[in-house]
Amino acid sequence: MVDLVDIEGAAGRLSGIAVETPLLRNAELDQSAGGRVLLKPESFQPIGSFKIRGAYNLLSQLSAEAARHGAVAWSSGNHAQGVALAGKLLGIKTTIVMPEDAPQAKLNNTRRLGGEIITYDRYTEDREAIARRIAAERGAAIVPSYDHPHIIAGQGTVGLEIAKQSQALGLPVEQVLIPCGGGGLTSGCTVALKACLENVSVFTVEPEHYDDTAKSLESGQRVSVSQTTPSICDALLAESPGKLTFEIMHRLGVRGLVVTEEEIRNAIRFAFRHLKLVVEPGGAAALAAILAGKLDTKDKTTAVVLSGGNIDVELFAEIQAELT
Amino acid sequence: MVDLVDIEGAAGRLSGIAVETPLLRNAELDQSAGGRVLLKPESFQPIGSFKIRGAYNLLSQLSAEAARHGAVAWSSGNHAQGVALAGKLLGIKTTIVMPEDAPQAKLNNTRRLGGEIITYDRYTEDREAIARRIAAERGAAIVPSYDHPHIIAGQGTVGLEIAKQSQALGLPVEQVLIPCGGGGLTSGCTVALKACLENVSVFTVEPEHYDDTAKSLESGQRVSVSQTTPSICDALLAESPGKLTFEIMHRLGVRGLVVTEEEIRNAIRFAFRHLKLVVEPGGAAALAAILAGKLDTKDKTTAVVLSGGNIDVELFAEIQAELT
Repeated sequence: MVDLVDIEGAAGRLSGIAVETPLLRNAELDQSAGGRVLLKPESFQPIGSFKIRGAYNLLSQLSAEAARHGAVAWSSGNHAQGVALAGKLLGIKTTIVMPEDAPQAKLNNTRRLGGEIITYDRYTEDREAIARRIAAERGAAIVPSYDHPHIIAGQGTVGLEIAKQSQALGLPVEQVLIPCGGGGLTSGCTVALKACLENVSVFTVEPEHYDDTAKSLESGQRVSVSQTTPSICDALLAESPGKLTFEIMHRLGVRGLVVTEEEIRNAIRFAFRHLKLVVEPGGAAALAAILAGKLDTKDKTTAVVLSGGNIDVELFAEIQAELT
Repeated sequence: MVDLVDIEGAAGRLSGIAVETPLLRNAELDQSAGGRVLLKPESFQPIGSFKIRGAYNLLSQLSAEAARHGAVAWSSGNHAQGVALAGKLLGIKTTIVMPEDAPQAKLNNTRRLGGEIITYDRYTEDREAIARRIAAERGAAIVPSYDHPHIIAGQGTVGLEIAKQSQALGLPVEQVLIPCGGGGLTSGCTVALKACLENVSVFTVEPEHYDDTAKSLESGQRVSVSQTTPSICDALLAESPGKLTFEIMHRLGVRGLVVTEEEIRNAIRFAFRHLKLVVEPGGAAALAAILAGKLDTKDKTTAVVLSGGNIDVELFAEIQAELT
């Protein structure tokens, strides 16, 4: 399992590697929420998302012998960049299996960071099987994108920072909203938040049609959802929460919220116009939930994780140009 | 004149009104500069630029009698929004003379904040004369956009924050780059920076063809430049530095840098791709100077003010779509 000590250990390893992102406030957003909203822009990390935290925390704990054989991961893009950067910083060769239709920016950045990319067709091929075959052939370490204690502890440093920073501001958070794919970020953050703060509620936010975590948390058991409807939230398209991540989220009382694609597009526009931030679709899910009034925020202090900012120019321009 | 006490006074008045913007770092930018770059994103202010600082500092010091007659300003947009918001917060009626071709976002936001807008043709009419006539008719106070001690002191709180925050990080800044129109921000910041730090150099950054401040600082006297060439930097198109602002900048040894329009467009792209920040053309001038190598940043700690983020969607999309 993962506890506060693991997360504090990860924070130590990540010092000087991941950015301690600030908590931002915006008058327009406070007004819309009728309360205090603290934004945690993980888009400011070196790779544009929180994923460096977990990837580096895992890779930095490989034995010298294991590291010599390299590491293999699969990812739509943000975990790919996290693994590639962590590998570059630690001198570990990394190979990442990515869908051939992943955002161009994510493919380019992963390559630029020195990651070897192997593409696959997301409709006909099984990325995990491809990655496991490569890992077996090379004796390489697998770097799961969420269901591993070291990944969970690394991502949990986001929650640790939210707890400490909000306390330092004299505004300890009462509720925290986190975009959710497989649940690595949410489970780690929840462990840290519940350990540091007395009364705090945590919510996952998922796009419609990909609400496996919300359904799982509500039913009390892991649910898989079919993925036939397209979504712009490439970072949040897990079929089900992880085994470990679900166990943690369920035990600690996390609840699930769902937003529509249109609500997410609206949040990306709001971030451009009022926050002056570039947020990717998956990274804007929690902000979308606030703006769409999916949760009572009146007179409360709510933290919102903006989990990533890697969006292609074309999609960004298309969303900004839409009338509202 | 303006001294540290005035700026500290302004900081007190602005508490809870302006955001204390963070200092951000980015690995990509540090690498490009070969040193440590600390970004001050004034784009995070409630109106998307630093202008609320000076406007509120001035309006909040009007007598009750003067405030009753309202306030008049002229501005291409950011000062307009600062004056409108300060007026709204203080219950003072504000009227702003704006060019009819000002960015739509700036016109809309000024109106939304309750400012009365009077447009003029920037090629045939004199905005200052229009504003002074209205002020005389109504007995209203004039809120200059830069050449006033209260405006300079208000904008100077940016420099005070840079000094204190960089010291708290253990990275006291050695040089500071500031986008420059009439010099209100630079002169105020320089007073604060020179009072708080032993060895700090300050540089204005202006777009080509609008380098009146660079020319003035170099020649030792106020120079005006003609303005026939178009520029995307609507916020930096002053014809000459102010009387007060020039006197301060000249006395404290500020030097002037100049960047091309293409260098500014490149900086806006860099901010989108790597910093995940939305920056307007004028607000990106200092970042452009760093990226274009206009100054020796190797092994130095350099602060860069991103002075605003109010850019229309169409121009932003056009700049992002350009090949580099």
